[in-house]
Amino acid sequence: MRVAVDALGGDRAADEIVRGAADAASADIEPVLFGLSGLETHGLALVEASESIDMDDHAVDAVRSKPDSSLVRAVRAVADGDADAVVSAGNTGAMLAASLLHIRRLPGVHRPGIAIVIPTRRGRSVLIDAGANADARPEHLVQFAHMGAVFAEEILDVPNPEVRLLSIGEEPEKGNQLTLDAHELLRSAALRFGGNTEGRMLLEGEADVVVADGFTGNVALKTLEGTVKHLLDALRAELEASARGRLGGALIRPAARELRARLDPETYGGGYLLGLNGLVVIAHGSSSRVAIANAIRHAARGVKHDVVGRLQERLTVLAATPRA
Amino acid sequence: MRVAVDALGGDRAADEIVRGAADAASADIEPVLFGLSGLETHGLALVEASESIDMDDHAVDAVRSKPDSSLVRAVRAVADGDADAVVSAGNTGAMLAASLLHIRRLPGVHRPGIAIVIPTRRGRSVLIDAGANADARPEHLVQFAHMGAVFAEEILDVPNPEVRLLSIGEEPEKGNQLTLDAHELLRSAALRFGGNTEGRMLLEGEADVVVADGFTGNVALKTLEGTVKHLLDALRAELEASARGRLGGALIRPAARELRARLDPETYGGGYLLGLNGLVVIAHGSSSRVAIANAIRHAARGVKHDVVGRLQERLTVLAATPRA
Repeated sequence: MRVAVDALGGDRAADEIVRGAADAASADIEPVLFGLSGLETHGLALVEASESIDMDDHAVDAVRSKPDSSLVRAVRAVADGDADAVVSAGNTGAMLAASLLHIRRLPGVHRPGIAIVIPTRRGRSVLIDAGANADARPEHLVQFAHMGAVFAEEILDVPNPEVRLLSIGEEPEKGNQLTLDAHELLRSAALRFGGNTEGRMLLEGEADVVVADGFTGNVALKTLEGTVKHLLDALRAELEASARGRLGGALIRPAARELRARLDPETYGGGYLLGLNGLVVIAHGSSSRVAIANAIRHAARGVKHDVVGRLQERLTVLAATPRA
Repeated sequence: MRVAVDALGGDRAADEIVRGAADAASADIEPVLFGLSGLETHGLALVEASESIDMDDHAVDAVRSKPDSSLVRAVRAVADGDADAVVSAGNTGAMLAASLLHIRRLPGVHRPGIAIVIPTRRGRSVLIDAGANADARPEHLVQFAHMGAVFAEEILDVPNPEVRLLSIGEEPEKGNQLTLDAHELLRSAALRFGGNTEGRMLLEGEADVVVADGFTGNVALKTLEGTVKHLLDALRAELEASARGRLGGALIRPAARELRARLDPETYGGGYLLGLNGLVVIAHGSSSRVAIANAIRHAARGVKHDVVGRLQERLTVLAATPRA
C-alpha cells in the first residue's frame, strides 16, 4: 500500500520525517514523500510540491492559498486514489481543512473526530474527539462513540468495546448540559455504553472508548501528557540531586525507560482523523523519526483493516435502523 | 479563630476527621466539631447534629430535608457568626447548596467557584473553577479570574498574579465559543491577563491563576491527579518486579516520597469555595487525618488574610469602575 507523507510538516521537518518514512518502508508499506524539489529522499519516491504550510498559518486560508503545498498535495493523493492513506505532523487545522475539502466526509457524518490511543494499565483504549472540533452537539458525541467503537475493534483488537462518556462524575446526572444530553442519547444508541467516566480513570483503562467533545478531550489529553512528562522529569531531577539518588536512578533506569516508552505519545503514532472518506493520520507536531515511522505503520494498519469501509458500513446500518 | 468541622462528612468520617481536627488545634485555631451525640471528640468542642448527609444524597434535596445534619449545621455556624470558617470532606454539591442557601453570595457574584492549589515546578498556582459549576458563561470566567487573583495574592503570596485561561492552544483564536468570548473579556479586564494556557502547562506553573469553567477545570484536575497516581503506582510495580528494581527503589525512596508529597492533593487541604459571604473549604472525599488537618489550616490562613473581605473589596471597586 502507498502512504502519502507530508515531508514538510512538523517541527522537525524535513529530515526526521524523511528518515522516519524510510524506516517504515517495508514489503507492505510504500511511503511516498511530498516535499520540495531536491529533498534528500533516502531512496523513497518524491512528489514535488512548491511550498509548505507553517504551524502558525491560518488553517483554512493556508489550504486555499497554497494548493501546491506538500500538505494539500499529500491529502489530495488520497482523494485522487493515488495513495491509501496520508500522514502529516504539520498544522492540524490545515490537515482538517484540506481533508474536509478534498477527501470529504463519509455520508451522514456531522464532524470528523480525532481518535487517539491511550496506553492504560489494562491495555489500550481510544479517546475521541481529541481536538478536531472545539464545540460539539450531543449527536456529534454519539457519532464519535460509533467511530471510536470501530477504531477499538479494528485497531485495538477489542471486540464489542465498552464506550464511556468523559464527565465530572460517574453518576448520570453529573456533567454539563452537553454531556447530560449526550448521556441520554448514548443510553439508547446501538453501543455497549457503560455510562460516564472521569479524568482520573483515563489511564486505568475503565473504558475501551472514551468519548468527549474536542475541547474537553484535548484538555484532558494535554494534561495527561504534560503530567507524565513533568513527573518523569521531576523524578530525574530529584535523583540527580544526591549520590544515593544517582545510584538508585542507575538501577531503576530499565524500569523507568519501560514506563516512559509505554506512556510516550510517540509510541502510538498520532491520531486518526475519523469520519472522512479516506484514511488521515495526524502526528504530533514535535514528532521524531520514531514517531513518524510509528504513525505510518499506524496508518497502514488502518488501511489493512479497512477502517474507513467498516465505519461507512456501520453508519449505513445505523441510518437504516429505526431508533429502538 | 473558630473553624466549624463537619465530622460526619467524607469517606473516612468520623474518626479520621476528628483526629485531623485535633491535630490542627492550636493557640490560634479552635476547631469545633459538628457530629452525632456521643462522638469521640479528642477534647474538642462538639455541636450535636442529628444526622448526616451522604456522598450520594441529592445535594439540594438533602440540604432542604436535613436541616439538622452536621454539614448544614456547620455551614450555618459561619452564616450565624458562630464560626469563622467551615471545612467539610462531605458531599460537594450539598456544601455548595448549603453555602448558597445560608452563607449566600457576596454582592455582585454570579456563581461561586472552587479554587484549588496546583503544586507546580515553579511554586504554587491556583485553578478556578475546579468544579462548582458544570456550565458557565464568559462573564463567570472573568469573575473566577478576579477571585483567583485574590486567592493568589492572599494565600499563595503572589503579588500582581498573572492570570491565564485554560484552552486548547496558546493563540487567542484557539478555543471553544466559551473560551473565545471569555478571552475577549479578559483582555479588557483589570487583571494581568497572560492569554491562554494549555493542560500540558498546568504543572509547569506558567500562570499564577488558571481560569476554567467548572467542567473543564474538574476534568483537568482529575486527569492530573489520576495521572500522578497511575505513574507513581506503575513505577512502584515495575521496581518490585526485579531484584535490581527493588534495590534501586529502596535507594530512590526519599526522592520518590518527596515527589509524592509535593504532588499529593492531601498536602494542599482542599479547595476554597470562593464568592460567598463566608469562608468555606471543601476537602477531598477521601481525606485522611493529615488532609483534614491541612484543610483546617488552609481555612485558617484564609480567615487570617481576610480573603472574603478582600474579595468583596475587589468586587466593589470593579463594580464602581467604568469599563476602559
